[in-house]
Amino acid sequence: MEVNIRPIGRVHSPYKSREEIKEIAKENIIGEIEIFSEFGKGLKDIEGFSHLWILWIFHLSKGSPLQVTPRTEKNLKKKKLRGVFATRSPNRPNPMALTLVELLEKKGNVLKVRGIDAIEGTPVVDIKPYVQSDKKDKARYGWCEEIDFK
Amino acid sequence: MEVNIRPIGRVHSPYKSREEIKEIAKENIIGEIEIFSEFGKGLKDIEGFSHLWILWIFHLSKGSPLQVTPRTEKNLKKKKLRGVFATRSPNRPNPMALTLVELLEKKGNVLKVRGIDAIEGTPVVDIKPYVQSDKKDKARYGWCEEIDFK
Repeated sequence: MEVNIRPIGRVHSPYKSREEIKEIAKENIIGEIEIFSEFGKGLKDIEGFSHLWILWIFHLSKGSPLQVTPRTEKNLKKKKLRGVFATRSPNRPNPMALTLVELLEKKGNVLKVRGIDAIEGTPVVDIKPYVQSDKKDKARYGWCEEIDFK
Repeated sequence: MEVNIRPIGRVHSPYKSREEIKEIAKENIIGEIEIFSEFGKGLKDIEGFSHLWILWIFHLSKGSPLQVTPRTEKNLKKKKLRGVFATRSPNRPNPMALTLVELLEKKGNVLKVRGIDAIEGTPVVDIKPYVQSDKKDKARYGWCEEIDFK
């Protein structure tokens, strides 16, 4: 069984290439999510939410190794291979990305958002609201707890 | 541009049909995510995380209206149509679901989890860890703030 996923919009981003996205968690990058006009009616009520999940395609993903060294750990003296499902790596069996952004403004079919980590032109396949049950106050973050995010 | 998504595993759930999933946020339902053996190595390190995002396919999704009445609002006297991207409705342009579960145990390629809201046999397409930046302390939840979740 396979499923065909089609873009509903695209990212407009100050990042123009993969190389420009070198660090994780640049939370302040502002960009836009342009939703194609035929899906515009699906944006009704979205302005009530401060944060949105953007599902997009890692369209430049290279291969799908099952274990990877996360970019946050690339500078460690002792490199570690992590299971890809324990990372947000772009190189994974299905090239699906999940980014949480802050919605700043809605202008027609264009959402101005903070927290873009995709490059210009990236295909967007879904938007979902960030809801109360997405906030877990008590969580363990595995290997990410050892990382000094800058 | 279209992208083919293939299952990496499947859900084992006490829910056997759509009709059995009538209410949102039954957070205590326990089930399993079985990852197919060829993807098993991708689960390394996952046990360090208390919560996981499960991306799965609404394989029984019916159509893709751009505006829907969320099931939490079906009993309101005055029904409201919400933009589908402001809801987690299963009927959407791309039938992608996003569920946050608590990881209880890992046994080989099977993850025992709490928070299943998919039916038996649902195709799973990705697993991602719940990381620190997924927790937003100050968020607005739009129309969901008006709902009395039970």
